[in-house]
Amino acid sequence: MAELFWPPAPDWRRWRHVTKIDPDRTLSQAALDAVFASGTDALLVGGSTGMTTDAVTSMLDRLRESPMPVALEVSTLEAAMPGPALFLIPLVLNTKEAHWMGGAQARALTGILPKYGPMIPWHLLLPEAYLVLNPDSTVARLTSATPCDAATAAAYAAFAGRVLRLPVIYVEYSGVFGDMDLLQAVKANAGEAHVVYGGGIGSAEQVAQAAAHADTVVVGNLIYTDPSRLKETVSAARA
Amino acid sequence: MAELFWPPAPDWRRWRHVTKIDPDRTLSQAALDAVFASGTDALLVGGSTGMTTDAVTSMLDRLRESPMPVALEVSTLEAAMPGPALFLIPLVLNTKEAHWMGGAQARALTGILPKYGPMIPWHLLLPEAYLVLNPDSTVARLTSATPCDAATAAAYAAFAGRVLRLPVIYVEYSGVFGDMDLLQAVKANAGEAHVVYGGGIGSAEQVAQAAAHADTVVVGNLIYTDPSRLKETVSAARA
Repeated sequence: MAELFWPPAPDWRRWRHVTKIDPDRTLSQAALDAVFASGTDALLVGGSTGMTTDAVTSMLDRLRESPMPVALEVSTLEAAMPGPALFLIPLVLNTKEAHWMGGAQARALTGILPKYGPMIPWHLLLPEAYLVLNPDSTVARLTSATPCDAATAAAYAAFAGRVLRLPVIYVEYSGVFGDMDLLQAVKANAGEAHVVYGGGIGSAEQVAQAAAHADTVVVGNLIYTDPSRLKETVSAARA
Repeated sequence: MAELFWPPAPDWRRWRHVTKIDPDRTLSQAALDAVFASGTDALLVGGSTGMTTDAVTSMLDRLRESPMPVALEVSTLEAAMPGPALFLIPLVLNTKEAHWMGGAQARALTGILPKYGPMIPWHLLLPEAYLVLNPDSTVARLTSATPCDAATAAAYAAFAGRVLRLPVIYVEYSGVFGDMDLLQAVKANAGEAHVVYGGGIGSAEQVAQAAAHADTVVVGNLIYTDPSRLKETVSAARA
């Protein structure tokens, strides 16, 4: 039913470079203009904390003129709202708590389904299976993510990609540039799953390294620290 | 690579009636003959406990002459062995422990992948997302499954079927005949997922009730108590 009045899903498999915007951080208009002009394939609105209705609404409002599609990471129920072209549903693979493996969203659906079930654009919901790999990050503490070597990451990738056949595996190093051997092991074992890399990208050279293994590279922090250099990371992802 | 020397997966979506055989229980040859003659679509070898290498090997050996395909539920690593036409990978939706939501298998894969990765017939692995609904059952105690009303079951079904797009949702009442309203709610919200019902089926009438909502009905206990009546449950599932 919802398919009738929602647009089709964007072709996210073709996104090579994605720019992540955190509604909880201050982004100047000049920086946002640099993002719009960068040629990045899509904007991803998300964050580990501060995904309040107000913060997300106000960020989506600023992105209304975006020349590229906007995806929203629905990490909290209050962050779910119409507008974005795609809704990313995060779950964590390397945690002991089922709450973070989808339990939270299943629970949230219990309240939503009876009232809003027929309105939900299921075809625009895309689950992302995260490997949360920086133990010092907020998201790792929040989700009780357990550290993970390359062999274990490969097994998670095989389980998510080849057994559950989930569409996206997200290798997340949150602020530090990650282990490229681990990323390579994930890609080698993920089957048909799309592999996303994010974390600590500060240069075109790092994008090139990550893009050698990942299908999509996410750049986040750079737009807050040096937005004029975003464009060169886009070129590196395409090369 | 493994696809080259393994057969293609059987067409499990067409199975309406499946007979579950527990390697941990004694099954007479006469009962097994009744199963073979019943017309059931497939045999499912599985159990909550007692899935030892010896028990599974010896049961699979007895099923070598089966006229219908044999599926093996890989609930423990030692239960994994070649022979079956399909390998079912169980995970529990209504638990708080990520271990039972796939964490166990991901961990098991860490040991297997480096050595046997290229040999694994991924195309024969089928994940089943369980709702474990009899709180007094062994499997509920083992997996710390939390009780679940119809609204919550519907939300789990939507999450597994329409967000994660898992292929199979298994409504399991383990020994007691379940709530058909809950089963209906699961089917109504499961999207494209195939819905399996199992638990407490003792008559053709109960099969008919479950088959009104579920895509596949699993009969287990009856083959131990009254195997001659299995055939009428097959007819009921087809009607």
